[in-house]
Order: sequence, then C-alpha cells, then structure tokens
Amino acid sequence: MNAVDRSMLGRAFLVLNSFGVERPRLTQSELSRRTGLPLPTVHRLCGQLADHGALERDADGRYEIGVRLWELGALAPRAHGLRQVAMPYLEDLYEATHENVQLIVREGLEALYIERLSARGAVTVVGRAGGRLPLHASSGGLVLLAHGGADLLAEVLEAGLARFTPNTITTEHRLRSTLAEIRRAGYIVCREHLNVGTLAVAAPILRANGAVVASISVVVRAADDPAPLIPALRAAARGISRGMA
Amino acid sequence: MNAVDRSMLGRAFLVLNSFGVERPRLTQSELSRRTGLPLPTVHRLCGQLADHGALERDADGRYEIGVRLWELGALAPRAHGLRQVAMPYLEDLYEATHENVQLIVREGLEALYIERLSARGAVTVVGRAGGRLPLHASSGGLVLLAHGGADLLAEVLEAGLARFTPNTITTEHRLRSTLAEIRRAGYIVCREHLNVGTLAVAAPILRANGAVVASISVVVRAADDPAPLIPALRAAARGISRGMA
Repeated sequence: MNAVDRSMLGRAFLVLNSFGVERPRLTQSELSRRTGLPLPTVHRLCGQLADHGALERDADGRYEIGVRLWELGALAPRAHGLRQVAMPYLEDLYEATHENVQLIVREGLEALYIERLSARGAVTVVGRAGGRLPLHASSGGLVLLAHGGADLLAEVLEAGLARFTPNTITTEHRLRSTLAEIRRAGYIVCREHLNVGTLAVAAPILRANGAVVASISVVVRAADDPAPLIPALRAAARGISRGMA
Repeated sequence: MNAVDRSMLGRAFLVLNSFGVERPRLTQSELSRRTGLPLPTVHRLCGQLADHGALERDADGRYEIGVRLWELGALAPRAHGLRQVAMPYLEDLYEATHENVQLIVREGLEALYIERLSARGAVTVVGRAGGRLPLHASSGGLVLLAHGGADLLAEVLEAGLARFTPNTITTEHRLRSTLAEIRRAGYIVCREHLNVGTLAVAAPILRANGAVVASISVVVRAADDPAPLIPALRAAARGISRGMA
C-alpha cells in the first residue's frame, strides 16, 4: 500500500464529511466545491461509495448518506450500544421531569448528543441527536471533561474557552475549580452557560474502574429550581453505569 | 485513479462490513480472518479508519465501529431523517397498542428495521433496530415489495422465496396475489409468516407520487384479533406519509 492508496480513503472521507445536518443532500458540483477535489474524481468516488451503500442518490440525482452507513453506524458500541442500555433510564427520567433529557459522549474535543428526549412544551435547547457542543460550555461536556484526564483538559485549554453567554466558563482557574467540584459532588448545575434562559444539570456515566463513558443532562428554564431534578438524574446515571458493566 | 485506488476503498469496506450485531468488537487477527486480507494490510487499514473516526479501539485493543461513523450514519435521510418524522406517530401507535411497533425501509433485497418500540410484556419478535429480514417473509417487507416495482419483484423471485414457517409465502403465484391485495387494501395481515406464534400488520409510507418510502408494522400474538389495530396503523402511516412530503 502506498501514499496514493492512503489518500484514496482520505478523499472518500472528504466526500463523506461534506454532508451535515444543514446539508443532508449534495450534488457532485457541491461536493467538488466543498472537498476541493476535481469533478471527475468526485464522480468516481461517489460511484464507489454508492456501490458500498455509503451514499445513495435521491430522485433529483443529489447524493445523500446511505442507509447502509446508518446500519454500520448503529453498530458503534459507544453510540447505539450505549443508547440501548440507557433508553429505559432516559425514558423514566423524562417521565419524571417532562423536560429535555440528553445522553452525551465525547468525540474529540466536543460533546456529541447520542439521544435527546424533549417534551413538546419543554424549553428549546441547542443541539439535536447527532449534534455537537463544546466541552467547556455545556453541562454534559463539563462532566466528560471532569473525568477525561489531564491530557484532554490541556487540549481543551489549548483550543481556547469560547464565550457563549456572560456565564460561560472562560478562565482556566474557574474551569479547574468547576471540574474538581464535579468530581467531588458527582453532578453539576450550569445556569445559562451556553444559552441565556436555560439551566442544565448533568451527571457522569462511569465504569467500575472510574473511566467515564458518557454523561446525561436535563435542561430546564433558568428560573426553575434544579434541586428536585438532582436525585432523579443521579439515580438514572447510576442505573446506566451499572448497565454498562 | 486506478484499480489499486479503487480496491483500497473496497478493502476498507471489507473491514467495516466484518462488524455485526453479534460481533461488535474484533481483533486485527479476527479482521484478517474475516476479510481474507493479510494482517499487515488490516493493521494499516484499521489505523487509517481510526484516523477518520470510523473505527475506535476499546480498552482491550479490539476495534469497534466509531462514534464518528454513527454520527455520519445519523445524517442518512432514509434512516435518521425518516425516524425523526415518524417517531411521534410510532409513539402514539405504541401508546395505543402497547405491542411491538416497527419502522422499516428497504436496503437491497432485505427489509431493515430503523426503529422498534417494544413493551416489556409484548410478544418477542425477531429483529432489532439495525437488523434485517427478508422482504417476502415479513409484513413490512411485503408492503415494500408491493410498491417496489417489477424489477425488484423479479430480483426477489430470482433470489428465491425461503421458507421460515408453514405459512411463509414461497410461491410466485401466492406472492403476486398477496402484493396485489396489499396495493388494493392498503395494508396486510400476516399470521405466522416468519415466526410461529406471532401475527403482524403492516402499512406503507408513500410519497405523493406513489413512491414507497418505508413501512410500519405492529406485531402481536398470533391468537390476537388484528382488526382493532388496523385503523390506528393506517392512520399512523398516513400521518408519517404527510410528514415526509
């Protein structure tokens, strides 16, 4: 295998990574523009990715991510496997709160929503299943960061602590003391860290050896009292943690 | 791009396609055995797929499908997009029946379960979200086949009509008349076609132009009366059909 071989896979992922929540369908011209690859290359790559079911063409000839890639992705233990274990607990938590309930894992330097259950009348929150949020500015992300080790924290600090609201944690000092408090208390309450008007409570899902698998969070209105949510949240997190053993 | 380039992508999919519901984690030796690729090739491919987030290594050094592939798969309009539209209707149908409720699309010559809601006490059925069933032997598959066109039917007949129970449709004549009846009635009741002891009712999700998008089914005990299920099932199918417009 040589450099040409390797770049073939790299180019295939350039094409796949062009798709997103806001652009689920793309023409070959759009793919060429987004990837910087020549149109004939895009044409051949799309054909081959379609042969493997990774892409499909819609009625208008645009490409979209194929059902086969969804099926492969559903085999990811850290996403679908976790979700299978967590769903009954998330549903119980949702029944108890009728608010936004979220299951979150880390992917690189971001928090990724694996599942979200939202009541029709619940406060609107940023993100969707498959959406991403910064680790330092979301309650679920902070919990992952608190249990993610020193190297991860160094990377997050290196990348910078972007501000989303006046309450976002943007200093290393406040971040370190918040993470220590999460490890001590076993949960966190974030009032308007990411969005003005919302309050989030999060707790970790941990393996027996202390490694963090995921976090769960409940998002309510900023004016709500979070205290009654905490026991239910922590019980759900412990239940899922046991189920992952 | 030459033949070597193309086979690179093919070999990457050989590796990815080795993973399955029964084998979510594989060592490099197992991958080499399953793909028929030499161990050094598997080693390099796994490294490159891990660089792109398509594979991840667990604590024991085994490979598993990565969260990034799950995230990409979640962009598939025919799977996740459909699921987003369908979920409220599936939940209502589940509340009304407290039985197994399933959302099904076609992938090649098989039916693929995009979602399944099951009551704890409901009858056990084959399949899971991300599982596959034959088109001719499942109620949801027959509905997809009824609206899938002559070429698809010819391919299914060519592949052969495998028997699962004494009631499975295994002749072309019975299959054709069943498909005509589905198109006429708008639903199907299958008693013990795939499993002895279960009965399934299915209806299509259609676009305005008549193209079939998916099917939904409810699975109950074979002794149950399906009649009360049918109006709820058809109402849910119509609701999802409207939502896909």
